[in-house]
Amino acid sequence: MELLEGIYSRRSVRQYKNQPVEREQLLEIIKAGTLAPSGLNNQPWRFVIIQDQGLRNQLAALTKFGRIIERAPAAIAVFLDKKAVYHDIKDYQAMGACLQNMLLAAYAMGLGAVWLGEILKNSDQVRALLELPDDLKFMAVIAIGHPASHNQTSNRKELQEVILKEY
Amino acid sequence: MELLEGIYSRRSVRQYKNQPVEREQLLEIIKAGTLAPSGLNNQPWRFVIIQDQGLRNQLAALTKFGRIIERAPAAIAVFLDKKAVYHDIKDYQAMGACLQNMLLAAYAMGLGAVWLGEILKNSDQVRALLELPDDLKFMAVIAIGHPASHNQTSNRKELQEVILKEY
Repeated sequence: MELLEGIYSRRSVRQYKNQPVEREQLLEIIKAGTLAPSGLNNQPWRFVIIQDQGLRNQLAALTKFGRIIERAPAAIAVFLDKKAVYHDIKDYQAMGACLQNMLLAAYAMGLGAVWLGEILKNSDQVRALLELPDDLKFMAVIAIGHPASHNQTSNRKELQEVILKEY
Repeated sequence: MELLEGIYSRRSVRQYKNQPVEREQLLEIIKAGTLAPSGLNNQPWRFVIIQDQGLRNQLAALTKFGRIIERAPAAIAVFLDKKAVYHDIKDYQAMGACLQNMLLAAYAMGLGAVWLGEILKNSDQVRALLELPDDLKFMAVIAIGHPASHNQTSNRKELQEVILKEY
């Protein structure tokens, strides 16, 4: 798939076939994430791969979008390493760039993925469940699988609504 | 260019040929940015296109990386609309996803770009210079041009350093 076309046509995928995702593909998705830029190249991102169904069910119980996590064959929980941070806003932006690369990489490989953020309300419980220390700040879960549907749509504002000025 | 290959091979470009960038290409870059996901699809991103040399020089004076902005034929200043926000961390992440799409789109079109964040220290002056109201929060500048060099390199941690656990 072409890069620009991929950026334009990627959509969140929330329904998946009952078919596992190759571990190599998950590593590829994470590698893509790590190729995002970060301020001072601090690379604050850290990842936990979750394929185990029992653990996914426990994770699912922590968000109202749990059905997606239960049914996706794989999830990647993404954390910010507080030991690596240097500027709140720029670090969160770098995490967003990393997550976007991950979504695009999944799409490039014919997989479907969705970025789940509502679960951040239970960040402490997620850390406890994954047995992670306090210095990791929970950022998002990406659910990943083989898409069961391709008819996702999404609206965007027109360019003239978001371009404020032109000098 | 292939999507995955583009994600893997994109690098920051800080030196440009003395050749303008087409306005249509800048619009394409912004459109790519707007196709990033955002929480509740709130699309908090706003953009200011800056090609005017005089204004770029004034902007350049506000960051120690000013030479890049002076010499890049185009810059896009990116803002968060405070009227659209709903959750600090998730909004900053969405902005990062937007910025990453913009960098990838520039690369896809054969342009070079770099995300500049140091200038955030002078956010108030940037807003004043661009005559923007208080409800826009400055997020970054992307400098864009035709690459004068292709030998940029960048280091990344090994995957085993950033994958914490696997369940």
